[in-house]
Amino acid sequence: MDTTLITILVPVAGLLALGYAFLRTQWVSKQDAGTETMIEISGNIAEGARAFLRREYRVLAVVVVTVAVLLGVANIGDRFMEGEVINSPLIAVSFIVGALCSATAGFIGMMVATRANVRTTNAARTGLAPALNVAFSGGLVMGLSVVGLGVLGLGILFLAYDNLTAWTDVRVINVIAGFSLGASSIALFARVGGGIYTKAADVGADLAGKVYEGIPEDDPRNPATIADNVGDNVGDVAGMGADLFESYVGSIIGTMVLGTGFFTVFGADAETNKLAAVLLPLVLAGVGILVSIAGSFLVRVKEGGNPQKGLNMGEFGASAIMAVLAFFIIQWMLPSSWTATTAIVGEFTYTSLGVFWAVLIGLVSGVLIGLVTEYFTSTHTRPTLSIATQSVTGAATNIIAGLGVGMFSAGIPALILALAIIGAHAFAGLYGIAIAAVGMLSVTGIQLAVDAYGPISDNAGGIAEMAQLPPEVRERTDKLDAVGNTTAAIGKGFAIGSAALTALALFAAFMQQAGVENIDVAQPRILAGLLIGAVLPYVFSAMAMGAVGRAAGDMIKEVGRQFNEIAGLREGTAKAEYAKCVDISTAAAIREMVAPGILALAVPVIIGFIDKDMLGGLLAGVTVSGVLFAIFQSNAGGAWDNAKKRIESGMTIDGQKLGKGTDAHKAAVVGDTVGDPFKDTSGPSLNILIKLIAVVALVIAPLIA
Amino acid sequence: MDTTLITILVPVAGLLALGYAFLRTQWVSKQDAGTETMIEISGNIAEGARAFLRREYRVLAVVVVTVAVLLGVANIGDRFMEGEVINSPLIAVSFIVGALCSATAGFIGMMVATRANVRTTNAARTGLAPALNVAFSGGLVMGLSVVGLGVLGLGILFLAYDNLTAWTDVRVINVIAGFSLGASSIALFARVGGGIYTKAADVGADLAGKVYEGIPEDDPRNPATIADNVGDNVGDVAGMGADLFESYVGSIIGTMVLGTGFFTVFGADAETNKLAAVLLPLVLAGVGILVSIAGSFLVRVKEGGNPQKGLNMGEFGASAIMAVLAFFIIQWMLPSSWTATTAIVGEFTYTSLGVFWAVLIGLVSGVLIGLVTEYFTSTHTRPTLSIATQSVTGAATNIIAGLGVGMFSAGIPALILALAIIGAHAFAGLYGIAIAAVGMLSVTGIQLAVDAYGPISDNAGGIAEMAQLPPEVRERTDKLDAVGNTTAAIGKGFAIGSAALTALALFAAFMQQAGVENIDVAQPRILAGLLIGAVLPYVFSAMAMGAVGRAAGDMIKEVGRQFNEIAGLREGTAKAEYAKCVDISTAAAIREMVAPGILALAVPVIIGFIDKDMLGGLLAGVTVSGVLFAIFQSNAGGAWDNAKKRIESGMTIDGQKLGKGTDAHKAAVVGDTVGDPFKDTSGPSLNILIKLIAVVALVIAPLIA
Repeated sequence: MDTTLITILVPVAGLLALGYAFLRTQWVSKQDAGTETMIEISGNIAEGARAFLRREYRVLAVVVVTVAVLLGVANIGDRFMEGEVINSPLIAVSFIVGALCSATAGFIGMMVATRANVRTTNAARTGLAPALNVAFSGGLVMGLSVVGLGVLGLGILFLAYDNLTAWTDVRVINVIAGFSLGASSIALFARVGGGIYTKAADVGADLAGKVYEGIPEDDPRNPATIADNVGDNVGDVAGMGADLFESYVGSIIGTMVLGTGFFTVFGADAETNKLAAVLLPLVLAGVGILVSIAGSFLVRVKEGGNPQKGLNMGEFGASAIMAVLAFFIIQWMLPSSWTATTAIVGEFTYTSLGVFWAVLIGLVSGVLIGLVTEYFTSTHTRPTLSIATQSVTGAATNIIAGLGVGMFSAGIPALILALAIIGAHAFAGLYGIAIAAVGMLSVTGIQLAVDAYGPISDNAGGIAEMAQLPPEVRERTDKLDAVGNTTAAIGKGFAIGSAALTALALFAAFMQQAGVENIDVAQPRILAGLLIGAVLPYVFSAMAMGAVGRAAGDMIKEVGRQFNEIAGLREGTAKAEYAKCVDISTAAAIREMVAPGILALAVPVIIGFIDKDMLGGLLAGVTVSGVLFAIFQSNAGGAWDNAKKRIESGMTIDGQKLGKGTDAHKAAVVGDTVGDPFKDTSGPSLNILIKLIAVVALVIAPLIA
Repeated sequence: MDTTLITILVPVAGLLALGYAFLRTQWVSKQDAGTETMIEISGNIAEGARAFLRREYRVLAVVVVTVAVLLGVANIGDRFMEGEVINSPLIAVSFIVGALCSATAGFIGMMVATRANVRTTNAARTGLAPALNVAFSGGLVMGLSVVGLGVLGLGILFLAYDNLTAWTDVRVINVIAGFSLGASSIALFARVGGGIYTKAADVGADLAGKVYEGIPEDDPRNPATIADNVGDNVGDVAGMGADLFESYVGSIIGTMVLGTGFFTVFGADAETNKLAAVLLPLVLAGVGILVSIAGSFLVRVKEGGNPQKGLNMGEFGASAIMAVLAFFIIQWMLPSSWTATTAIVGEFTYTSLGVFWAVLIGLVSGVLIGLVTEYFTSTHTRPTLSIATQSVTGAATNIIAGLGVGMFSAGIPALILALAIIGAHAFAGLYGIAIAAVGMLSVTGIQLAVDAYGPISDNAGGIAEMAQLPPEVRERTDKLDAVGNTTAAIGKGFAIGSAALTALALFAAFMQQAGVENIDVAQPRILAGLLIGAVLPYVFSAMAMGAVGRAAGDMIKEVGRQFNEIAGLREGTAKAEYAKCVDISTAAAIREMVAPGILALAVPVIIGFIDKDMLGGLLAGVTVSGVLFAIFQSNAGGAWDNAKKRIESGMTIDGQKLGKGTDAHKAAVVGDTVGDPFKDTSGPSLNILIKLIAVVALVIAPLIA
């Protein structure tokens, strides 16, 4: 195995992804954008998205520079592990590169999504298949940008540090960990800020419509309507992208760090490259890019067919191919068996086959958690039926039923994760848990494409409505959108599951680097850490929900001001000032994420410097509690949403025909509105919380060891 | 220190409590019950409560006998710890006695409560002071029955096993642990079943009133109204009593078990009695009984005064006296310093002063958690104001605000518990954590009296309404009831806090008995246990919420049937069949608690026999997650309730006057209804879950060691 060639091929795979994404972007841009009205509407949305990004990135620049300086200063002065220097102020460079890569991926994804939306609408004027093709292409660009920039950034940093410095490999990998923190910082802004943006706009537009004399949410006279559509891109495209970018690089870096534990064994064997276990996650990620591109060719739909089948074909097809390739890659890179001793696991005999099983466990459990999520939130299953049924007796019973479904839905994913942890560890120790996360995330390229396809289709439907296109167009976009809801649910499950495994990978890496040998919760300070960690998701969620409430309130007031001050707005003769509403959402998102951001960054640093073992307890607490609380919120939100859709589709309960406008529907709308911040703000923000805290712990590990 | 005298005096203290409770019962019974209508109404409520207890106890008898046989059989055949036999089939006897004591306490408390309610109403016809006196006396009987039967049962079992067998002291205490399991089994039925009962009746009566042409909840024509009033007694009196009974005996037994760890040290010193640390919790509990009785004399109110002051005087006064007495008792019973080595804590130098600090930490943190709870749920603080404000834009924003308040409110109690754990442990090791729980619970007698006073006043108000007494009567009962809401909130915080510390005490005892030396969550099977433990509260809560939904549905149907089939019911000329509705609530409560009950009992047994360390992880997970999830639910529910009350009181927001009948009030009613099962069913049931799982672990510890 030639390490030099591999370290060069890895960034090449990243470039390949970006190149193919560029081609697809060109293709999307070349499609016809439709009528003048359509172009104008989509122009407004794109302008709003750009405005948000501009403002967000301006704040981010300040944050990134500040943290980079702090990181640089904190890492002046050598720190040692087993006699070798392991830190360097250059970690600040890794951090900046990580932040830039994540921000760029978000920028590309959002630009393409705001082009693909209107072109999907236009393609839907001719047929379902071309519309799917445009929407999916838009998503694919996002997916490939994320994996491409992730692999490229990590690969180039590795190449640079390895070849331009005289550092040991352990030091190289430790300094690269800053890349992950950079990705996490952007993810915090994109996912939490984006989540606040999108739901402030959504809830605000919705309620403003109700408060100010029946202007519907999608009506062009509603000044908040463009902000609402921008929000779909900001939250569901860029936010989800940043979330998975963080998981992607986090799992790779966690595995690389743990791979250094085999240096003494691998280095002693002339046959095996010392770096084999370190490079394996990068190689799997690189191959995953090719597999994702290949999988994208499987996504097709016939006119009148079900788009779901095409998307499933792409996703499951890619997973299957990946599983087969992973087997051969692992056999090729790792020795068939070796024994190593680490402080945490003790003496353990690893096998290449065992590592493969761990990867497979990751791949399979990602799919399984997705399927469970689908069951609990889908329009045609029992949980949403129970919520719909309980809507007949009013909003209160609808809410009770939805909360119950959300709580119950956490059970099976918890079991899947528990078994995955035990299984991956039995096959390959802590390295197994980390590589399982890499396995789960190896097909992120196509997974994210399928995810991002959803909000693009959603936007396409909105544009069709606003531009008053003929009903068959709306019918086609609705068909795409309905599938988008399912893929969004699966994607959310996948995001949570991968966040959990990534956090555990980073957690294990932290323990190794900080010299924490066990996290004994029978020790009171560790139990206290566990308790404090477990309550963080509650406080963080509460902050996110409060932010949405306040920002939505601001939005409602601004809409009222416009109706009062702009003559002719109500009659449709004057234009609403969309930009002002976009501005409010933007300002609120950026203002409101400061407090939770500080919480997430400061708590692990403070606790870590008090007691590194207590930080270990905190990591266990925040991960376990965060995953469950996130599943509860996401699934409750998804189930409320689809229970409402189910009622709208005109179901019959106890001989009573339901549908839009019935009391049951009104009750279901309440549930849906409650579910909005649950599933799109506070729930997903916990994915970031658990990874961010773990990566902060990993980065400060040399300082507190 | 004469052990023999102490072991005799402890049950005497229990008898004293029961004797004084008997006197107060006589006094309550002698009070005038008022008009014929009042007597009839209260007779219906009392009959409903008896019907529930009869049916519940019939099922319980089967469960208790079955578990007793299983326990007896499982404990045939000697098991050893350090060469000594530690188990015996007689554990089944402890179990039965524990179950009987808890059931009896519940029976006494409920009988008195259903007498005190109508007499409180009648006393309110003459003045506030006599009404407070009756209501508080009713509560005091419940409180003293709980502590009296707890101390009496434990004291007599100890006396009997110690004197009638040739067992070692370790064996005696191990076999007594079954008492705690008996208490937990009853608590499961009383708290979970009672919670389902009360909210099925409440939500059912409320919604039935809405569905069937405007029959209000409290209207005598509403067939569910008696079931609703019975529910207050079943859930808030008997359920809360069983919950605290479980905490009370659980914390004592956990401390006794840990106290056996000092045998070798204390036994080697002729000055110190070997049993000192084992008997200390019993002595503190016994003295706490006297203090509670003394404190009850401090509860007074002048006509026109605030009953809150009187209740606070009693509660805080008793706590202060207890703190002082605890200091002298501990100095007297324990040596001023000793060194002991245990597997978990290692070598540690204990001091009697340290043990006192631990007790004080327990006492203080109980009060603090109660005060935090009050802040988050009180009608005059910011959290309920924010919910009330957000009710203006509808039910959805009301729900979002309430969920946010509930989540946020978990933060400070988690910190208090974390500090209490660290503090108590620093002062006196694991024994310190356990004795802190005993300290917190030492004044349970008066704490529970203040708690139970709430539902009695609530019932009194309901009776005044139904019997159409003059407005000044209702005004006085309202004044009592308003205070009752605050005491209920504090009581709930206290119940959760004490459940957490009790679970930790039992947890520590389990580790000692099962030979679990550490619970290292870096080990994957323990992490898996942590994850499974942490998800149990979600699943358990979901089951409880689902049960309320289903049972309320049954109730609504039954009400409909009566309106259809009983001629003249709607016009008020025929009587409703209250008993049928009582029956439905009863049947539902008993049917619906089977599944969660089996979950709570079976999971720890199964996991324990798979791997005792994994069970350790599960205990940590269920305790931490359960406490936080319980605080979230209880406080969200309490805040919704009082936000509604705040709106009803006619507040002004943005120049808009709110009040009953406004849209904001309708939105607040939705929140209140959602909060009902949150705060009275699923939330409090988690107290039981965490203690039950811990006590099951402790009881099976010798079998899996």
